[in-house]
Order: sequence, then structure tokens, then C-alpha cells
Amino acid sequence: MHAANLVRMSGVEVKGISDIRTDGLAEWAASLGISRATDDYRQLVDDPEIDAVLVCSSTDTHSDIIVQAARAGKHIFCEKPISFDLAETERALEAVRQAGVKLQVGFVRRFDPSFKQVRDKVREGVIGEPHLIRITARDPAPPSEEYVKVSGGIFIDMTIHDFDMARYLSGSEVVEVYASGAVLVDPMFERHSDVDTAVTVLKFANGAIGVIDNSRRAVYGYDQRIEVFGPKGCLMADNVAPTQARLMSADGVISDKPLYFFRERYQEAFVREMEAFVECVRDGRDVPVSGYDAYQAERIAHAARKSLRENKPVQLNA
Amino acid sequence: MHAANLVRMSGVEVKGISDIRTDGLAEWAASLGISRATDDYRQLVDDPEIDAVLVCSSTDTHSDIIVQAARAGKHIFCEKPISFDLAETERALEAVRQAGVKLQVGFVRRFDPSFKQVRDKVREGVIGEPHLIRITARDPAPPSEEYVKVSGGIFIDMTIHDFDMARYLSGSEVVEVYASGAVLVDPMFERHSDVDTAVTVLKFANGAIGVIDNSRRAVYGYDQRIEVFGPKGCLMADNVAPTQARLMSADGVISDKPLYFFRERYQEAFVREMEAFVECVRDGRDVPVSGYDAYQAERIAHAARKSLRENKPVQLNA
Amino acid sequence: MHAANLVRMSGVEVKGISDIRTDGLAEWAASLGISRATDDYRQLVDDPEIDAVLVCSSTDTHSDIIVQAARAGKHIFCEKPISFDLAETERALEAVRQAGVKLQVGFVRRFDPSFKQVRDKVREGVIGEPHLIRITARDPAPPSEEYVKVSGGIFIDMTIHDFDMARYLSGSEVVEVYASGAVLVDPMFERHSDVDTAVTVLKFANGAIGVIDNSRRAVYGYDQRIEVFGPKGCLMADNVAPTQARLMSADGVISDKPLYFFRERYQEAFVREMEAFVECVRDGRDVPVSGYDAYQAERIAHAARKSLRENKPVQLNA
Amino acid sequence: MHAANLVRMSGVEVKGISDIRTDGLAEWAASLGISRATDDYRQLVDDPEIDAVLVCSSTDTHSDIIVQAARAGKHIFCEKPISFDLAETERALEAVRQAGVKLQVGFVRRFDPSFKQVRDKVREGVIGEPHLIRITARDPAPPSEEYVKVSGGIFIDMTIHDFDMARYLSGSEVVEVYASGAVLVDPMFERHSDVDTAVTVLKFANGAIGVIDNSRRAVYGYDQRIEVFGPKGCLMADNVAPTQARLMSADGVISDKPLYFFRERYQEAFVREMEAFVECVRDGRDVPVSGYDAYQAERIAHAARKSLRENKPVQLNA
Repeated sequence: MHAANLVRMSGVEVKGISDIRTDGLAEWAASLGISRATDDYRQLVDDPEIDAVLVCSSTDTHSDIIVQAARAGKHIFCEKPISFDLAETERALEAVRQAGVKLQVGFVRRFDPSFKQVRDKVREGVIGEPHLIRITARDPAPPSEEYVKVSGGIFIDMTIHDFDMARYLSGSEVVEVYASGAVLVDPMFERHSDVDTAVTVLKFANGAIGVIDNSRRAVYGYDQRIEVFGPKGCLMADNVAPTQARLMSADGVISDKPLYFFRERYQEAFVREMEAFVECVRDGRDVPVSGYDAYQAERIAHAARKSLRENKPVQLNA
Repeated sequence: MHAANLVRMSGVEVKGISDIRTDGLAEWAASLGISRATDDYRQLVDDPEIDAVLVCSSTDTHSDIIVQAARAGKHIFCEKPISFDLAETERALEAVRQAGVKLQVGFVRRFDPSFKQVRDKVREGVIGEPHLIRITARDPAPPSEEYVKVSGGIFIDMTIHDFDMARYLSGSEVVEVYASGAVLVDPMFERHSDVDTAVTVLKFANGAIGVIDNSRRAVYGYDQRIEVFGPKGCLMADNVAPTQARLMSADGVISDKPLYFFRERYQEAFVREMEAFVECVRDGRDVPVSGYDAYQAERIAHAARKSLRENKPVQLNA
Repeated sequence: MHAANLVRMSGVEVKGISDIRTDGLAEWAASLGISRATDDYRQLVDDPEIDAVLVCSSTDTHSDIIVQAARAGKHIFCEKPISFDLAETERALEAVRQAGVKLQVGFVRRFDPSFKQVRDKVREGVIGEPHLIRITARDPAPPSEEYVKVSGGIFIDMTIHDFDMARYLSGSEVVEVYASGAVLVDPMFERHSDVDTAVTVLKFANGAIGVIDNSRRAVYGYDQRIEVFGPKGCLMADNVAPTQARLMSADGVISDKPLYFFRERYQEAFVREMEAFVECVRDGRDVPVSGYDAYQAERIAHAARKSLRENKPVQLNA
Repeated sequence: MHAANLVRMSGVEVKGISDIRTDGLAEWAASLGISRATDDYRQLVDDPEIDAVLVCSSTDTHSDIIVQAARAGKHIFCEKPISFDLAETERALEAVRQAGVKLQVGFVRRFDPSFKQVRDKVREGVIGEPHLIRITARDPAPPSEEYVKVSGGIFIDMTIHDFDMARYLSGSEVVEVYASGAVLVDPMFERHSDVDTAVTVLKFANGAIGVIDNSRRAVYGYDQRIEVFGPKGCLMADNVAPTQARLMSADGVISDKPLYFFRERYQEAFVREMEAFVECVRDGRDVPVSGYDAYQAERIAHAARKSLRENKPVQLNA
């Protein structure tokens, strides 16, 4: 998806693509006008003609690739999370710092027009300093058991987006986490010491309280809603539906359910995310989502996991 | 319904009720605490203890009762229309004028909180001088053939409410009418030279254009919507549903259909209408919906009927 | 308000009213057609002509009045909570049990048509067994400091309605509570060891998780929303606005804010609540909101208070 | 815009572009990767390497270019209307027929996902045979006087889209038109014997009635709504807003106004329109919007103009 978005941008050339699964890779790359396809990502990392790389591989490979790319002087876009381990994430960020390259992390929801408008209006002071933040994030269907096994658990895999959104919306750091979870969707999650339903409460440095609810399966599609409440009002962003069509019938008034999943819902956000990365690389500007943001979201995710395990709130020291 | 609303008002006593169908009338009246029930309305009209009468009988009896009540010095509330004939309506209004009594006509929709708010904001100049007025009025089910036979046709029976609403919203008089109609719901309407589906275009003295669409059967309930468009914006009032409950399911997002019919939708408006009448009688104020308003709406209805018959616009002279 | 609603019901006679503030009490009672007004409630409790009493006094007086009324054989409607102390509540309930009278408690929101429809559809199995329950309850303005001082704190005063709603919606008992709170609206709350902003997480016996967010001040009015999510869908009830009018203007699309406060929002619910009580008394049916319901909601409120103080989840034993 | 959309499609090569204004044309074309830019469109029409041409010039040039392109064996996409004169349109269509090439006309709204869904559901019989069709189409701002002067008037320039939409939605031909108009937005329209506000009533062969309201200036943006009412329900498509963000504040509940104008609102529709044309050319399929569709919409537009001038309904013979 990122490749398809990048080839459409003026001033961008996609020099090559690498994947460990090479079946049909070259054909697919060619269809996008990308001439090089390889199963050895180091070839791309070491190519002096390449300015920047995107790291979209499985999470356990992110930090090594980041370190290598940083040392090779490439700017980096990496999907979330950077790693399953804070020390490893720190190592990757240190390599980025030392190389002086840019690292943007894939919290794509920040680029959603509705969420961005809520954040912008919060920053403008429209509702005053936030008191309450509510985030609902429910996937339409659980991932495969194979994926769940290596996902790192719901907080680092799924809720991490909401932790970032909470920081983005509040403009304040999380200082305490309380997480509550259950296996209600599929017993498969239990086999991997994971949960499929969760409610997480966040306390922010500025006194605000946040609450996130997650489910791995919403039969009506991808449920993505946010709300920021403050002394001067409440900003909300509701789900996005494929059409505005509506039917009034004897059975009620029926409108479209939300767009199915992240590819549909965040289609525009994915484009804007890449545009932002390209502009930052080209113009030398700061990236809108930094390694620090990833690190903070990972810290919250680890604290949430600990809170769930111990059934008590967990503090995050500054 | 009016009786039930009136007995709940402080300072009002319902002295008696008259109906040509007396089966169970006395029992029903007693259940509301009304001691007198009669099939001779003249007894009420002539009762010196009675200050005001409500005329809710069939349309062909309205004008005679108005004339008698006016001569007896009673204030009068009468359901719409006053009559099927403009000369007869004029006769009734003349009797009211000579007697110096008040006459309020039952255009209940003016008392609906949503419609009233639209009108109030139009008057405040929120959208500027109206350019376009759109009214949708669709009944949930057609009346009986017996009723249709004596209804006077869709324009004087049903659209008359919309003609009054158009005048109320625009604050301007109608100077031309073009009506278009069809029999699409039930062939019964054809047998009585009536239509069950109609679109009427109104031209106002101030240059605005109005459009009304009607149907005798909307399977989803009573469809009552208005819209006023002007140089500074557009005011609208959507349907009212019984609850705010909503279901997001695999079949879509489903909410309640509109309230079933006028008793449900205009429940509050019927109360406010009576309150307004009682206050005007008690305080000697002008009624909010006058005989002149009824006369104008009837004129438009007659012109619409003529326009439909002749298939051309019909002018209303000032 | 209850008195005004009761006098309008057929088959109900309000025999008397008692208040410790007697200024204007008799006049006000007379305006409703109630002939007896007293500052000694025992006169009413002891009156053999009275079948049932409403206890709407300050919370600290509830249990004594309940005990006296029960011993006098009166059926009882009591506002929430029954008391600030579980032992005292138990004592009142024991008296009710021994007297064999009915006791209905004032969780009025159960009678709201939107909330009731959500609950009914949950019971019908429309969304399957609930996984997540979300309740938002924000008051338009904080109470006076005088009130806060004796309110018993946000959980027993305000959130108790949400605790009852959570039980009502889920059909399951709460087994654990985690409460988080802050003083963000008015420092006055701090002076009384209270909070004005709170997020409470509930775990239910059936595995579901609930979350409630509260604020003592929402500038846009009374914010009352619920949501129940399950394997087959999500039921929600949004706020109720005074009108359906909407303005499209250069500044955006603007519609009414929610109804101001509980009197406006729950106007119909208050009527239905009284109707339900009257029917139960008359027909000998079980009350729809029992002393047991009040006791359970109070237990949750006390646990929430403890959780907030100790900053850890608190278990409720069955 | 079409060029930018086409260059992004796989399997499409934009061989050249022609415009009478050549200032910056070559540079702009080059930025899209289009190597040829000319002020002589015949060079493109005669190029044997070109399979299809898009005619997006001013309306008075359409028919000549169509005739030339058809004779050169090119498939043609042409913006609406084909001409201001039915005989001229017939001449262009005859050339297309004789050459056996494809001609698709630019009624882009048919490709809007919301409108398409309404049409699809009408075709599926969800609401039964349509009784009423309502279309609202209001531009955010009037065009320049220079444009108005040569626009052919509101019906052939603006309402023509709605005439096509009415045919598309109803699946039936228009047999009678009554048009009503006024100059309320800008006296400039009067100077060119045009109106800026119009209401048009359509009668369809199947008995349905349609009504269109237009304004040249809606301060809240591009107002594009449709509604189809039938015996089994009512399908509607509301405006599309840039975001789902909403603010609840002391001033009311405020959400985004509609997308500004056709480029924003029909962004996706313009892409789909081109995709459909490319597929038809490539696969030899029938175009989704034919010359016949253009001809019918033009006939209705001319009839509407005549109706406005003569203030009476105008019949369209089959």
C-alpha cells in the first residue's frame, strides 16, 4: 500500500522493494513501475542512490533494520511498534540519533482528517484544557492465531495506536495506567496469554483522565471513535461510512455501517502520512511522529500489560 | 385529545362535550371529569357559563357552528379548514368579526417546537430573506374511502397544513400556485377525482419559491420535514423519532423510524396550541392563527385544485 | 415534580404533602389541588387513608422514614440512595421485607424511552451477551457547595445512577470496581474530599467490562449517553435535544445542544416511573426497581469510593 | 483534473493535451509526465496512436470536435452538454453512430458512491417503483458574468446534471416539465435573461413526479442531496462533509459544512468516471452514460427554459 501511494507522488522514485516472500514479488513491483525486487533488504539499505527506507517487516526485525539503515545514512519510516522491548527500542533510537537521520513512526491515525481536526481544535483551545479523553477502537475481525502468537499482545499490537492517539489528543504525557481485559471473542487469545477485549484508563500529567475500550471483533466493521471533553465543550469524531445513503423503511432508518478496516478507513491518512514523510526528508523538517512518540507509546503498552497481569494501576516515571 | 389536554390545564374547566355519536360519550366524558355530554351542541353554544367553544366536527358543519357560537358571544377554536367554499368561510369570518369574538384555527404544526424554532430563526434574520421553502408531508397511511369521499380532496384536506406552514415560514403571501398530482398509492383516490401524490410549487410576493411534496402513504411513518433556504444559510427541521437508540450491526446502522402519525408527532404541539388559545381568551390577546390565516390557506388550496385540473399555474390576486 | 405528575394520573389522589420548609407550601399544594400540607411527615405516614408514600427528602432522613412507613403498612417510593451507609440501608430493607410492603427506588433513567429500548433489545439478544458497556454522564453545572458537603461524594450522589444503569443494561452483577478521579472543574470539591471528574471501570460476573465517565460540568448541557457492545452488534442511545432544527451556515452545520438537565431530559421518564409505581401498588405487581437494586448500586458506590482512595481495584463479594 | 486522474491509471497513456490558452500549458503537462502540449487539438484528433479523446473545451466547440474525432475513429468522452442546440447535438450523435465509436458524456454525479448506491437500491426494488424524486443542487457561489453570458442559462448549464440524475434515479423518461425561477442572488443574471434560483417539476412516463430546486449561491457550500420515495420506503443521500468531527459547545452542536464544490465533492466520482470510460474503450463495453442520455437531458433543459419563459408546463413527446 505504501509503495502504491509513493509511486503516485511527484518527486518520489521507488527504487526497490524487498520481502522474504518473493513469490510474485517482482511482477507485483513491476506493475507499480518498480524495477528492483529482492529478498535481501541489505541491498536497498546499502544502495547509495536511496535516500530513505520504509520498514514494514515483522516487528521483531524492525530494530536491526533501523540500526543498519541509520548507519547507512538513510532516513527511515518504520511501522509501529519499533520493538517488543524498551531496551531494544532505545538501541534503535540511539542509532538514529547518532546517524542524524530522520525516523518517522507509523501512527497513521494522526493523519486521519477527522482526528486531526479534533486535535487541531484542542490545540486552538476550543474546548480548553482536556479533562476526559475517550477512545473506542474495535477491529472488525480478530487476526489469525499465527499472528496473535507473535503480536506481543493486544496492548503493544492494537491499543498502542490508541496510546499514541491519547498523547496526540491530550498534549500531555501519561503518568499512570490501569488496564482491564477479558477473553470474550475467541478462546484462542487465552492460549497465548492475551485478551481480546480491554478497557484501559490513563492518567495524564496535566490531570486529565483517558479511557480506551478495545475489542478484537465488531461485526459492524472497524469502530474508530474519539472524544475530548474539556471545560468549554466536547470534540468528537464519529465513524466514517462508505456512503451518505440512507433508507427509511418499515424496519427503521438504515444507513451504512463503518468502513470495513484500516485500509479503507485510513486510506487518505496513509497517503498523507507518506506525503508528510517525503516532505520532511526533502525539506529537512522534523517528522510529525518521532521515535520518541513510539517509545512513549511502547512504555504505556508495557505498563498496561503489567497492570493487567497484576490487576493494579502502574505508574510511569517521567 | 383536546379535551384531555384542556382538563389538565389550570384555570380551565371543560363544561361539556357534544358529539353526534353518543355511544359511550358520557362515560368517556366522565372519565375526564366532564359532567355534561350531549348530542345537541346548541346547548353548549347557548350556555351562558361557557366562554369559549372548540369546533372539531366534520368540515361541512364548521361554518354554521362558528356563526352560532359567534352570535352567542363565544370565543372559538375551529379545526381546519373552516369550509370547502371560500364564500362560506367569508360568511363565518364576517360573523366572528361582527361579534368581536376570537377565532383560532387549528394549524397545529405552528406549535411544533422544531418548526417554531425554524420560523423564529427566519424572523430573526438568521438566513436572510427566504429564497426557497421546501416542505415534505407524507401520511403513514391513507384515510378510509368514506373519509376521502367527503374530504374535499388532498389540497384542502392535507396540503392545507403545508400551505399554512409555507406562509408561516416565509412571512409572505402566495401569489401563484402550480400543482401536479398522480394516483400512485390507491386507485380509490381516482374514483373520487382525487390524487394521493402531489407536488405543489408556490410563488411568494417577496419573490421566494416554495415546493411541497405529499403522499398519502409512507410505510416508514409520518414524514414531516421543512427547509428554508436564504442568502445566509439554510434552516431545516428533520423528522422526530420516538427514541435516540441506534443499533450498529452487520446489516448497517439502524435507528428508529419517525413517530407514527400526527397524534404522536404533534403531541406537544397540540398542548401548546390549546395553551395559546386559553391564554388569548383569558388575556384578550390576538390569536396566533387567525381566521385570515385559514382563509388564505383555503384560497391556496382552491387554486392548487384548479391548477391540477387545468394543468397550469394559477394566480392569486391580492 | 412527582406531585404534579401524580395529580394528573387517573385513579390517584394525592392526600397530602410534607416538607420541613413550609413557606408557601400550602399555597403550592393547593395550586395542585392537594388540600393537606404539613411539616410533620408522620401525619401522612400514620394516615390510614393513605396507601403509599413518596420519600423525596434529604438522603440522611430516608431510612428512618422508610422504616416508619413500612411499619405503618405503606407502600414506598424512595429517591436514591436509600442511605450513605450499607448497614442502614439493610435495616430499611429489612423493615420493608417484614412489613410486606412494596419499595420502589428512584432510578428514573430506567424509564427513559431510549435507554429502555437499548435494554429491551439487549434482553432480546439483538447484540448477544454484552462485552462492553459505556456510560457517559455529565451534569451541566456543579451543585452548590452546601449540597456537595452532604452529598456523600460523587459516586453515591451522581455515579450511583450509572451503577444502576450498568446493572440494568448488562443483566449481570458487578464483581470489581476501579475508580479514578480528579478535581478539574472546581477546587471546592477538593475541600470536601470529593472529585468532580471520574472514570470508573466495572467488571461483571458474566465477564463483561463497563466504563463510566462523569463530569460535574458540561457547558453544552446534560450529557447522557449509553452504549452496549456485544458479539452481534452495538446498541447506543445518544443525547436528546429540544428540537430537530438544524442550521447550515458559513460557520458549519449547527443543531441544538442536549436538553439542559434531568428535569428536561427525564421529563417523560419521571412520568413513567410514577405510573409504574402506581400500577405496582394497585395491581400488586413487583416493582421494576427494587430495594435490592438500590442496595447493589450503593455497594458499588462504596467500593468505587474505596478504590479511588486506595488507588486499586476493589472486589465485591457476592 | 481528468489528465491528473488518467496519468495515475495503469494501462493508460496520456499522449497529449491541447488548449487555446497555451501559457504554462507545456510546463503543466510536463509536470504530469505528458510530453505533448498544443493549441491545435486537430493534431491530437489526427494522431493514429491515440485511441480516445476527451472533449473538455467550451460547449460551443463540443459538436465540431466530436464530429472530427468520430470521423478519425477515436472514442470520445465529452463534458455536458454536447451543445446548446438539439439539432447540433443530433448531428454530433449521428457522426458518432456512423463512425461506430464510443461516446461517454460527463454526467459525473452518476459515479458518486452515495448517489450510485441510491440508484442501485432503487433498481433492486428496495423501495418499489418510485413515486417522488427530490433533488437539491445548490452551488456555493455564482460563476463569473463572463461565464453566465455564454452558459446557455441555468437549465442547460447547471440543472442539466439534475435532469440526468432524475432519469438515472427514476429509470423512466420525463414527459412534462414545469419550471419556475427567480433572480434573488445576483441581478447580473437578469441582464442575461437568466435566473439564479429555480424549482423544476418533472412528470415521468411511469407516473412519478420529480422536483428539483437550484440556487447559484449557498453560503454553506455545495449542497447536493437526492431522495427517491416509493411504496416500500424512501432512499436518500445527504451531503458529504470533509470530516466527521463534531463540537458540542454552549453554542450548540456544530459539525462540518458540506465539501466546498464539485472538485471536492465529486473527487472520487471523477476518478470512477474516467475508469469507466477507459474500461469501456479497452473492453469494448457500452458506456455507462451515452449520447442518448445527453440528448434527453438537453431536451428537458430546453423544455424547462421554454416553460419558464411561457410560465406553463411543457410536454416532451416520446
